[in-house]
Amino acid sequence: MDTLRTIAPLVTYPNLHRFVVEAFKQAGVSDADAQVTADALAMTDAWGIFTHGTKNVRGYLRRLKAGGLRAAGRPRLAAEGPAWGIVDGDSALGMVTSVFAMQTAITKARACGIAYVGVRNSCHFGAAGYYSWLAAQEGMIGLSMSNDIPSVAAPGSRGAIMGSNPIAYAIPGGRHPPLLLDMSTATVAGGKVYAARTRGERIPGTWLIGADGRPTTDPSGYPDVGALQPAAGHKGYGIALLIETLSGILSGAAFTWRVGTWMWDDGTQPTNHGAAFIAVDTNLIMPAAEFARRMEALVDEIHAAPRADSVDRLFVPGEMEWERHARALKEGIQLPPDVVASLAEAARMTGLNTADFFG
Amino acid sequence: MDTLRTIAPLVTYPNLHRFVVEAFKQAGVSDADAQVTADALAMTDAWGIFTHGTKNVRGYLRRLKAGGLRAAGRPRLAAEGPAWGIVDGDSALGMVTSVFAMQTAITKARACGIAYVGVRNSCHFGAAGYYSWLAAQEGMIGLSMSNDIPSVAAPGSRGAIMGSNPIAYAIPGGRHPPLLLDMSTATVAGGKVYAARTRGERIPGTWLIGADGRPTTDPSGYPDVGALQPAAGHKGYGIALLIETLSGILSGAAFTWRVGTWMWDDGTQPTNHGAAFIAVDTNLIMPAAEFARRMEALVDEIHAAPRADSVDRLFVPGEMEWERHARALKEGIQLPPDVVASLAEAARMTGLNTADFFG
Repeated sequence: MDTLRTIAPLVTYPNLHRFVVEAFKQAGVSDADAQVTADALAMTDAWGIFTHGTKNVRGYLRRLKAGGLRAAGRPRLAAEGPAWGIVDGDSALGMVTSVFAMQTAITKARACGIAYVGVRNSCHFGAAGYYSWLAAQEGMIGLSMSNDIPSVAAPGSRGAIMGSNPIAYAIPGGRHPPLLLDMSTATVAGGKVYAARTRGERIPGTWLIGADGRPTTDPSGYPDVGALQPAAGHKGYGIALLIETLSGILSGAAFTWRVGTWMWDDGTQPTNHGAAFIAVDTNLIMPAAEFARRMEALVDEIHAAPRADSVDRLFVPGEMEWERHARALKEGIQLPPDVVASLAEAARMTGLNTADFFG
Repeated sequence: MDTLRTIAPLVTYPNLHRFVVEAFKQAGVSDADAQVTADALAMTDAWGIFTHGTKNVRGYLRRLKAGGLRAAGRPRLAAEGPAWGIVDGDSALGMVTSVFAMQTAITKARACGIAYVGVRNSCHFGAAGYYSWLAAQEGMIGLSMSNDIPSVAAPGSRGAIMGSNPIAYAIPGGRHPPLLLDMSTATVAGGKVYAARTRGERIPGTWLIGADGRPTTDPSGYPDVGALQPAAGHKGYGIALLIETLSGILSGAAFTWRVGTWMWDDGTQPTNHGAAFIAVDTNLIMPAAEFARRMEALVDEIHAAPRADSVDRLFVPGEMEWERHARALKEGIQLPPDVVASLAEAARMTGLNTADFFG
């Protein structure tokens, strides 16, 4: 039976997408919602952001089975105005709720120029950049952000104060692919600290604080003691607070310690993550050709700028992801071992035969 | 005559404000515009942000005399929709144009929930946080940002790619003063590098790149060679690009190298800085008492959190500025020597007698 769960690491995008759709359908999710979720997660893998893609299907399935995520949950617009809305996620999959919320922001921005949609009763939503990209597909500037249970220190704190609170944007790039930035407000992801610990290595002094609240280069206690450091100190901390306000406070969601950890907490309970989506319709504000021409000039100027010794290229945000994406569609996606193992487990949980998808 | 230009460094807020009003009026600025500008610059000094306050009156006066800033310039709404506007600053003082733009954003946000106002034909606008605070005064979340001539590297670049592109926010804090963050997207301001050079000191490796485009701890060549480093590397660079897009590209302003340096370039030419202002009317989205209660809980939680060894307090953004502000109104503002010297020069340029204001 175990051989049926074997997945060769090089998979095609359509097969990976089809597997994710079927896995969620086996867990009771509608075909439409499974498609929306697979779109987000397979795209994220194609960008090469494997920490936030199909690797997490297993964790979402676990919460669907336990009831903390509701397969039949339906996000709805709980309150709205001309250029704003609040979405209640009804504990549906975070990807389903986030796509609904960004689509709402896009529709309202098309009428008003800009729109804000806050989200409550959501869960982990994967890569923030995916929803920003949905807006860029419509010729808009898209912003996406989310709160999370604290894992990051504030300047001077002994422990975690804010979540890693990611923020992402996408900007139409004219003949260039959309500019796409997806960043956490911590210096680095906890996974990088943990990897250094596993390898027995020291880490830079800007990544972590230790049990005394002071910067440390020793990752051996992580994640039991200490906390991540905010990116650029008070700047990352300050941006995380803005994200917390727009995602967690103004939406009516849980904030800071009230948010559930989606992966480890009691799976029967909703996490009540908050999120926020903003779309700016550039087409209303400036002729599309002029906006495109100006963005192209900006990107071209950066590409042509003098480089440091031994640097081959200057990148704008998202360029690496789009090149990986093009390669993924053409040559397939080379999944890292942890993703392969996680997908195999997802197959086991749902009774799917991996050979039917990846054989 | 020179004794008339002597200013004792401890000044009262009203006297400082009155001096700035009169200085601009002497340069042909209307009383209304001089008042608006003095409000911004004196407030900035009261916050203790002396680099962006009345110290710059001298530089603004110089451009007003040369014609690059127009004393009679009138910012106007060049284009608009329900939740957006583009302001043409007509080369008026950057403070005048920025207040007009944020007030426009506030009015539109009151109707729509959120609004974006882009600005072109502006100039240096002082401290971005001042305009955000105007929105917070109305119970709104305010965001302000601006582009500038490049001084900051991109990852891998040999020289400057982006401006220091500041971004600021203010958030009503309930019984607490508004949260107020005002940050550049560089690791530190160029002034800090220059001060280290003057003192003959080394600097941290995250502040500057040298002539070869590599990080350096030697500030001796600055600002002739090298460039500032972006805060948190690709993160600060990425945020600077978003600010450039919202401030410079979408507004129709100059962007990157097309922006004039307000202090050193030919004073007869407009700098055509871009800026962007966003207001979110929290009162439309959530009952004011509930928003206040939630913000208070967030701030209280941070204040009560465990602190690192030898740390006395945890701060939220703006707390230090509000404490300095309270002290400034009560005890006066202790101006640093460079501000005193600059104000004395402004008095000389306008023929004002400092004894009439600070005597």
